[in-house]
Formats: sequence, C-alpha cells, structure tokens
Amino acid sequence: MRFCPKCGHQVNMEIPAGDNRVRAVCPSCDFIDYDNPRLITGTIPLYQGKLLLCRRNIEPRLGYWTLPAGFMENGETTLEGALRETLEESGSEVIPKQPFALISIPQFNQVHLFYIAELPKPDFHPTSESSEVELFDLDQIPWDELAFSSVTKALTFFIADHKTGQYGFHEDTILRNSL
Amino acid sequence: MRFCPKCGHQVNMEIPAGDNRVRAVCPSCDFIDYDNPRLITGTIPLYQGKLLLCRRNIEPRLGYWTLPAGFMENGETTLEGALRETLEESGSEVIPKQPFALISIPQFNQVHLFYIAELPKPDFHPTSESSEVELFDLDQIPWDELAFSSVTKALTFFIADHKTGQYGFHEDTILRNSL
Repeated sequence: MRFCPKCGHQVNMEIPAGDNRVRAVCPSCDFIDYDNPRLITGTIPLYQGKLLLCRRNIEPRLGYWTLPAGFMENGETTLEGALRETLEESGSEVIPKQPFALISIPQFNQVHLFYIAELPKPDFHPTSESSEVELFDLDQIPWDELAFSSVTKALTFFIADHKTGQYGFHEDTILRNSL
Repeated sequence: MRFCPKCGHQVNMEIPAGDNRVRAVCPSCDFIDYDNPRLITGTIPLYQGKLLLCRRNIEPRLGYWTLPAGFMENGETTLEGALRETLEESGSEVIPKQPFALISIPQFNQVHLFYIAELPKPDFHPTSESSEVELFDLDQIPWDELAFSSVTKALTFFIADHKTGQYGFHEDTILRNSL
C-alpha cells in the first residue's frame, strides 16, 4: 500500500501508537491499514463413497486437481462460503456433514477450512473455473496431480479417518519448506 | 475505499470481469480491492478447573469480561495468533489443548476461533488491554457481564461439554438479531 484508500494521501510505514507491528499509516487522515490473513473455505464432496475433484481451469496450478474451495467473502459464514465455492467450481449442491480440517499457511497469510459434504445426486459439471469435474474412487485419488498442499493434507487426513470410520477435526500448518 | 492504495487514483465501485460482486476497482492501474472476513483467535484458559477471564480496559465493551482473543496477524498460524493474544491480554503463557469453537459473525465479516488451553501456573496479570485478569469457578462465570456474544457462545459450549467430560469441536453462527 502506497496511498491512503480513504483520502488518497501517501502513507508512511510505521508502528502506530500502542501497536507493535509496522502498518501503513496515513499522516493526513490517520487511517491505519490492518492487513490480515484470509480464509479459504471449501468441501470434501462425496457421492456414494466416491470423491469429487475439480481440474483447475485457471491459474495458479492450471490443469491440476483440487477440492472445490475459494476465498470466503464478506457477509457469509464459513459454511456458506464453502457451499458457494463448491457450487461455483463444480456445479454441485452439497449437504454439509461436518467441519473437518483447518490448515494455516502463514507464508501466504491464509487459513484453509474444509468441510466433509455429501452429494445427494451425481449432479456436477465443468464450470468456468474447472475444465473437468469427476468422481474418484478413494484408492484412485490423483495424489501426484493435486493442485495445493492444503488439498493433499486435507485428503490425507480424510483417508486416514475413513479407514477408521471416525471423522475428527484436524488442525495443521503448512510451512515454507513443505510447499 | 475511495482511492487506489497502489497508485492513488480514485476507484470505481463495479463488478470486475469474471466476478459477481461489486469491488473497488482502479481505472488507472486495474487494482481490485478484495475485502474479506477477518479471523479473531483466542483461548479458553483453564487453571486447575478455573476459567481465566479478562476485564476489558479498551473499547468496545470497556469494563466487560472476555476471553483473551484478537485479530490474527499476517505470518502466523491460527494457534500462534491465539497464544499471542492470550499473552498480550492476560500475561499468561498457556498450553493449547484443542481447537474448540468456530463462530461466524457475517454481519461483522468476522470468524472467531477459540482453543481450549491450560495454564500450567497461575501466572497472569493486568495488561494495557485488561484492567483485571481473574480466575473464575465455572459456576461463577459472570454471564451478564460478558463482552461479546461469541464469548458467551464459546463458554456455553464449553460448560455443556465440561458436564459430559467430552470436548468436541463446535461451529455456530451469530446473526444480527441475536447480537
């Protein structure tokens, strides 16, 4: 940030009074820019024991497979964000079952949250964001072609829990050297 | 937002190509402002079965009791944010036990996440953000003097689980009419 979004004046990078972090501060109108991590919400959609994945039609990671997920928007809940992204990316209306995995990626200032969800009917289709949308048997997941490490992590937790039949809530962190 | 934070030009409010929401868009440098919900992370700190609460020394809700929690910062995990806020607001270094409650407040574009945590020693003290820091018996929680509905909700879940001895992961939403 170089200019104040409120008044257009050039900002200074400094530690505001009572704070301990450098922020963009406007010397003209006293606006302080608090830039915070963003939430990415999505689902692990299942239809009769098969997993729905989307092949990315957009950068980054064009052509790789992913769980439907995206940036949570203002005015919605984490669950609403996850269901909206699932619909937008796969054309499917899923029924949420439970929050399942919360993954922090501090390097990117992101937190990814996945819900387990059920596809009541095999209704899905390619979208502007997904060149293909497909169901995979759980032993046929294209691990080497997954788009993001958070997707790999969430699915690894899911497969482990699936083997026990007990689905918990998982929290983890992805660090720079594992990306 | 009225001015572009990158180039200082006046922005337009419009739906960018390929999007479906109104954003601030800069006609000069094509910057698009994505404003997303923020995460508030904190803890439910326990010392020998007693609950640690902080009396707010700052607005909003000055003088009311709260769990230590605050805005997650860039470069940290949700857990690191929760532990940092606990230290900043109560002077206590807690040991995290488990993620416990995830509460969306769509009206405020916020998501609150609380961890159950253990205080290994009764080391805590007032801080610039808390005029008092105190341990409460679980049947002495000052319900009528709690600062925020998310705190009330998280503690209600906690007390219910405490009665069963089984602590789950809870998700909920606070809507406008319940604030």
